[in-house]
Order: sequence, then C-alpha cells, then structure tokens
Amino acid sequence: MNPSLSPLLWQGDRLLILDQRKLPHQEEWLEAVTAGEVARAIRDMVVRGAPAIGIAAAYGLALEASAGEGETIPARLQAAAAVLKASRPTAINLAWAVDRMMKKSEELAPGNVAAGLAAEAAEIHEEDLRGNREIGRLGAELLGAAPRILTHCNAGSLATGGYGTALGIVRAAEEVGKRVTVFAGESRPYLQGSRLTAWELDRDDISVTLITDGMAGYFFNQDAFDAVIVGADRIAANGDTANKIGTYVLAVLAHHHGVPFYVAAPTSTVDPGMADGKAIPIEERPSEEVRQLTGFDAQGISRTVQTAPATVPTRHPAFDVTPAGLITAIITERGVARPSYSVSLAALLERP
Amino acid sequence: MNPSLSPLLWQGDRLLILDQRKLPHQEEWLEAVTAGEVARAIRDMVVRGAPAIGIAAAYGLALEASAGEGETIPARLQAAAAVLKASRPTAINLAWAVDRMMKKSEELAPGNVAAGLAAEAAEIHEEDLRGNREIGRLGAELLGAAPRILTHCNAGSLATGGYGTALGIVRAAEEVGKRVTVFAGESRPYLQGSRLTAWELDRDDISVTLITDGMAGYFFNQDAFDAVIVGADRIAANGDTANKIGTYVLAVLAHHHGVPFYVAAPTSTVDPGMADGKAIPIEERPSEEVRQLTGFDAQGISRTVQTAPATVPTRHPAFDVTPAGLITAIITERGVARPSYSVSLAALLERP
Repeated sequence: MNPSLSPLLWQGDRLLILDQRKLPHQEEWLEAVTAGEVARAIRDMVVRGAPAIGIAAAYGLALEASAGEGETIPARLQAAAAVLKASRPTAINLAWAVDRMMKKSEELAPGNVAAGLAAEAAEIHEEDLRGNREIGRLGAELLGAAPRILTHCNAGSLATGGYGTALGIVRAAEEVGKRVTVFAGESRPYLQGSRLTAWELDRDDISVTLITDGMAGYFFNQDAFDAVIVGADRIAANGDTANKIGTYVLAVLAHHHGVPFYVAAPTSTVDPGMADGKAIPIEERPSEEVRQLTGFDAQGISRTVQTAPATVPTRHPAFDVTPAGLITAIITERGVARPSYSVSLAALLERP
Repeated sequence: MNPSLSPLLWQGDRLLILDQRKLPHQEEWLEAVTAGEVARAIRDMVVRGAPAIGIAAAYGLALEASAGEGETIPARLQAAAAVLKASRPTAINLAWAVDRMMKKSEELAPGNVAAGLAAEAAEIHEEDLRGNREIGRLGAELLGAAPRILTHCNAGSLATGGYGTALGIVRAAEEVGKRVTVFAGESRPYLQGSRLTAWELDRDDISVTLITDGMAGYFFNQDAFDAVIVGADRIAANGDTANKIGTYVLAVLAHHHGVPFYVAAPTSTVDPGMADGKAIPIEERPSEEVRQLTGFDAQGISRTVQTAPATVPTRHPAFDVTPAGLITAIITERGVARPSYSVSLAALLERP
C-alpha cells in the first residue's frame, strides 16, 4: 500500500502534474507555473477526475496570485477563474473549488493574497484526502469480507487528492482486512480503466482483472459481482449522477441483476443548484477520439493508431447520467445518502 | 449499393479469403489451398462471422477432397472435418456446414467427390446469400420508414456469404426506400464495429455513426434507437442466443427502455440439440487481446499498441448469451420466430 501517490505535487512556485495520458508506460510530470497552464492541462486531460481537477484549479489560482501582488490581482484572478472553469464543463468540483478560492481571495488582506491562496489550495487538497479516507471507511462498512467489485473509469488516487473515492473504498476495505477483488472496465475511449485503475491497483497489490466495457454483462450473468462502485463528476440535488460515459450501462445491468450500485464522491461533487440530471452539461469531445486510440508500442513509444475509416462519423459524449432511481446509495465523506436523495443529500450538505 | 461484396471467393482450386484483420485500411486476400489453411484462417480471425466461417469450412473440405481422389478420401475428410470443427467453438454454423458436407461426401460416387463437394460448398454459399436476402426482406417489414438501428459487432456482408443478416435487414430496408440510420458499437476488443461495420456501410452509402460500446446507454437514454438488430453465433432450442461479447448488455438496455431487440440469423445458426444457452461453449480468447489493440498508423502500417500494464490479469470471453426472454423476435430466412421460441423455432426448422 502506497498512500503517498498523488497526481498533484505543490512546489510553492509551481504545480507538478502527473501526465496521466502517458500512464501506465511513462511517469512524466508536467510543470505548470501559470493558471493558464493548469487550465490547459485540465482541458488536455493531463490531469482528470472530478476532485483532482478541482484541486488543480485551486493551485492554478494560487499560481496566478503569486505572479505579483497589487491592484491587478482581483482582475487577474477573475480572468483566470473564468478560464479554469471553462476548461471542462461537466465536473462541478472544478467550479466549486474555483468559487471557494475566489471567495477566499476577497477575505485576504492585500499583500497576503498569494500566500493565503496557496494555503487555501493546500487545504482543499488536504480536505479531499481526508474526505476520501472517510468515504473509504464508510463505504467499506457496506461490503462483505471478500467483496467482488466492478468499477469503471478511474475514481482512484489519480482522480483525487491521492487516495480515491470508489478505489478509496477498495483501499479502506483492504486496510480493515477484507479481501477485495476488483473488475475494471477498460473505459473506452480514453481507457482510464486499463491505463490508470489497473496500474494503481496493481501498484498497491490489490487484485484487479481488466475487461472490456462490453464484457460487464457477461460477468453479471455469471454472478461475478457483489457491488458496483463508481465515482461521480456531478450529482444533482435529486441524486441523478453524471459520471464517465459507460457508467449508466453498469447501473442498468446492476438493477437488472439485483446488485447494489454505489456512487462514491465528496460532497463537493453535489450541485444543489441543479434540480435533476437533465440540465447537467455533458461534454462532447473530439470525434476522432472514437476512431483512434493511443497506446504504447513494444519500445515504449506512444503511438496513436486508427481503428476505423477516417471519414466515418462518430459521437463522443464523455459522460452519461445515471438516474437516482438506479443508485443504491451515495457515499460521501459526511455520510451515506440513501433515497430519497433530495432529502438525504440536502441533510448532508447542511451538516458541518 | 455493391451487392457483390463477399469475404470468400472460390477459384476452383483455391479459396480467396479477405483478410478482415487488415480492414478497413488494407484489402488483402489470403489464398488457402488446403483445409488446414482454411482452419487456420478461421482460428486466426482472417475470416469471422458465424455464416462466413461455415461457408469457408465447406470450401475447405472441397479443397481437401481435390487433393487427390481415391480410397484415402474418407479418412482425409474425417481428419479435416475434425480440424475445421475445432477451429472455433461457439458458432454452430461451422459444425452444421461440416456435417452437411460430410453427409454429401458419403452420397457421392468415387471419382466424383471433389467436384461434388465443390458444388455443395458453392450451394451452401448461394443458399446463405439467398437466405440473407430473405432475412432482409422479412426484417425490413418490421421497421418504420426511417428506422434508427443500433447494431453490434459485424453481422454484414463480411460475416456471411455476402449480404448480411443484421446488416442485410438494413440493406433490404434501404432497397425498399426506407431511410435507415445505423449506430455501430465499436465492439472491443476486436473492433469489428469500427473496422468492418463502419467500413461496409460507408461503402454502401448507408448512414452510420460509430460509438464506443459504453456509449450505448447514453443514446438509449436519449431515445436514439427504434430497434437493436444483431446477428448470432448459436441459438439454443429455447431461443437463448450466443453472439459477440457485448450483445447481452444491449439486450438488457433495450429491455429497460422498451426498445425491440431482434436477432437476425439463418436457421443454420439454430442448434436444436441444445436445450438452452447454458451449455453453449463460450470461447475464451487470449488475454493479451484485452491489454492491447491493433490499428493503423498514419502511414497505413498495422501496429499493435499496449493499453494496460503488461502484467494485469484480464478475462476475454469472446461471446455472451442473451436469454430468450430479452429477445423480441428471431428473424430467419424461413420466417420470423416469436416467443415461445421452443415452439416457433421448432416449427421453422421443420418447414422445408
């Protein structure tokens, strides 16, 4: 177990970001010294995962403030906040972290903004880590002694401050002596399951079996899963949950087979201003990402290969929305919400 | 519309097999002059699709017989039949075609076996084509004027004698003036959707949109489909249907959303000796195929890239079984079977 894996390392004057596009073959860290560079890293998926991009954005604003104190700070922060918020549309944690940082900046005395924002970003990062541990603890209690878990995409160390939401539950269950078996869907088109989840669980010596997304049904039919646990990018007030494309398929399968379907996310993922999932903005990414795939050749060189005719039209919604009715529970750092979520989530948000 | 596309071309003394592993980037034909070479082409997925591998195996036995008349023919045919049957386990059409050829060989006069088997293989091929046209005609009648169809894998020209089962219905609907829109799931790990279905529909100017397998749920939620139509590798007497891995997921989604789920297959795909789907042998293919993917680089050179840590365990069932209860109808060349399939399929099999 290596608890120190974080995709973000704050260096005081720059943010080191683990380039997740190059995993599992290369561990390269990208250095960002401006908010614009952080925004680009988020947009280009150097760093991804709803909590992680919120933390990255917070550090981005700290970098912006450190570019020089003075009267121009508020305007520069406003501009940087807009760029960071626009870098990806679906995960609400991004806007949540940016808004919290902007509010903090207004409370800080002139001359202390840079240091104060750096401290606030570090606090957001620390809170996320502590929150993940609590999500893990609460989630592990819901599992048996040898749970077989299906997960999707990557809701692990790499998607968060460093422990994970869905995979935080897996880690916490292992820490209390349960023997967890994880099935990871590869999560086309970006293959976060193959590249990230398989890599980080293998690194922690947690049993993981990789399958393609279409195989999930076969294994449900074989009674191979005790629970599905996924992360979230945005949770509406009624519990409807946006997460990586492909999640909804697993929720329908879990429902059909009577298997619990859990969402694990910090309360910063809940968007109380959004009544239900219909209005959650779903990012549509470039169509060529469905006609191609990036991997590594035998020499460890990154290569993008074409898998379809170059002219065939594609669609590429990057997220889908699972209706609250298919979700058994939402596991947050403040407690486990059960239906009806409009009541239970509101109660958790009011809790200190 | 190009009705002549066949993945198999009989040349009298050899069988030309379109190498489907190289599509859509290269159209290369592999030449087989022995049954063993045909069996290898089936095993290595040069040719795939339940009806197509049945036809290929028939030609393989014709090649074996042509290697020299005489007393050794029965023994050589027996051996070749065993090798061909063992080349892939799930599709029953393979065993069906081999058994039919072996029965024919016993009826032929010595000295006439090679010519007789070549004629029988050509007849199996022709029957499949005619059957596909009839499946198409019957299936098209079930669709509206502008049907939006989700399909999986490739049940088209490339999977059959040359017209298609699921895609034969699409073609037949277009031929009677309907405007079909096809959504094709890429069908990891082999990407038959990206490489084959997208290619052959594009070639026929039929509207096709490519999506990854996990996106199907998103589009069901958007009410994007009027029907799901897939092929089959083996249909049990009760209607349980084995087809490419990922099919079962679509059947559950179609059920959840109240969308008709059709199986299109010739009656040679029905295995009346198998009571239900539980006993259908499911081929488990090499695990590395889930950790990697083969595509083409910008220079059109075939490249296999790694997408996951080399040591991560995988599972690779190549097919799944959709229970009869999730199937709206099974469209064969002899008619459309509806539940209860044990009655309706038996009636179709008895029909001349």
